[in-house]
Amino acid sequence: MFIVGELINASRKPIRAAIEAQDAAVIQKVAVDQFEAGANYIDVNAGIFVHKEADYLKWLVEVVQEATGAPCCIDSPDPRAIEKALSVHRGVAMINSISLEKERYEGLLPLIAGTEHKVVALCMSDEGMPETSDARLAVADKLINGLVQNNISLDNIYVDPLVQPVSTKDEFGIEFLEAVEKIMTTYKGVHTMCGLSNISYGLPVRKLLNQSFAVMAIDRGLDGLIINPLDKQMMANIIAAETIAGRDSYCANYLGAYRGGKFE
Amino acid sequence: MFIVGELINASRKPIRAAIEAQDAAVIQKVAVDQFEAGANYIDVNAGIFVHKEADYLKWLVEVVQEATGAPCCIDSPDPRAIEKALSVHRGVAMINSISLEKERYEGLLPLIAGTEHKVVALCMSDEGMPETSDARLAVADKLINGLVQNNISLDNIYVDPLVQPVSTKDEFGIEFLEAVEKIMTTYKGVHTMCGLSNISYGLPVRKLLNQSFAVMAIDRGLDGLIINPLDKQMMANIIAAETIAGRDSYCANYLGAYRGGKFE
Repeated sequence: MFIVGELINASRKPIRAAIEAQDAAVIQKVAVDQFEAGANYIDVNAGIFVHKEADYLKWLVEVVQEATGAPCCIDSPDPRAIEKALSVHRGVAMINSISLEKERYEGLLPLIAGTEHKVVALCMSDEGMPETSDARLAVADKLINGLVQNNISLDNIYVDPLVQPVSTKDEFGIEFLEAVEKIMTTYKGVHTMCGLSNISYGLPVRKLLNQSFAVMAIDRGLDGLIINPLDKQMMANIIAAETIAGRDSYCANYLGAYRGGKFE
Repeated sequence: MFIVGELINASRKPIRAAIEAQDAAVIQKVAVDQFEAGANYIDVNAGIFVHKEADYLKWLVEVVQEATGAPCCIDSPDPRAIEKALSVHRGVAMINSISLEKERYEGLLPLIAGTEHKVVALCMSDEGMPETSDARLAVADKLINGLVQNNISLDNIYVDPLVQPVSTKDEFGIEFLEAVEKIMTTYKGVHTMCGLSNISYGLPVRKLLNQSFAVMAIDRGLDGLIINPLDKQMMANIIAAETIAGRDSYCANYLGAYRGGKFE
């Protein structure tokens, strides 16, 4: 499982405050904690700052990489902010995200064409959010083909089929899950990833729903998650789910996590 | 979700002791607790008593129904024991289980042919335990056809695809899950059910694996479970899983469970 740590997001109050105060130590602690808890990439998001987003995103990348050496997931809908952050990023970054929305697509594609960067391909277009699995597949198809034609390898593409709340439509969970399965079987070698919290929007005890959703998505083939890696219960469920789904040879990862105290 | 409460099983020490002492009050408390926690049927199993199984099973049925009025799931591989227990059972019972094993199949079929009893059809034959989803489907096909030809309605058939430990083969989880999906899509109207604990046999923190397995099985279409309904965490996960899987219109069941304190 490819884990992106989601905690460095300016929509969270302590992160917002740390960014405004340019307090690197606070940011670096959150980065190190996530990296040590198993995050492969550290998400950085400063989207709440309308005019300073690009500058702050650049600062976050520098600060996070200084402390961890970890690669960042540069999280913004704005190609200019991504470009600025990318200019200081060392190694292979992840871009979160491109979509079929014309402005976003055309602005971002030149930045990543022919590079080794990983890219999240969000199933959204100017026609809006797809509701069915087939509508998601149609957007995914255009995104994947466009990226591959621009010399981005399938292995660097992480399709996000777009999670929508089950509270707004009973079928939104299952349509997402079917989209994961269809994308993973249609485009061998591509990845799928998502955040979890949208699924439970508007409902109580959200962790319970997020956890079920993650477990099912792993069964359907999802191999990337943007989550809080410090949530031990969620991490334990992900490890168990991969074992049940047949992705854990001789249960070695499960047993190693148990011996490493990850289920306590 | 169709829930069978599994606690009245003589392999559990307090139950064995209560059966030997013919202590109805102990059994009845466990029966009432499970029924109130949401069990649709109360499993009764006295398989540990080789010579007295039939008599004890009959007694268990009487004692459980006296206290709860609930239907029983009569759990034995022995048709004679089932026949004796069935002779005192009031209303529609569930028989757990018929299989393709010749002795069991031929002994049990006359007892249930043309009745309204529910029956668990275990995917096992004299050739052994099927390992792949297709092998399970082949056994299920023979069982379903045989039962339907003997005037048992599809709606009363609960196929158990046979859970095997993921610790013995990495693919045993996924083969089971694929069997559930294939059975549910091939025989519209039939049910699938299983116990959970075999999946985690030989591994630590079994609840974690059992829970992931249940959630995935629900996503694949499983609609029956033999579990401990007093395990609030498992019951909460089942409710959440059904909501994510699109089986909970307007999230009404989830919200009702929340308001009823089931997630505390």
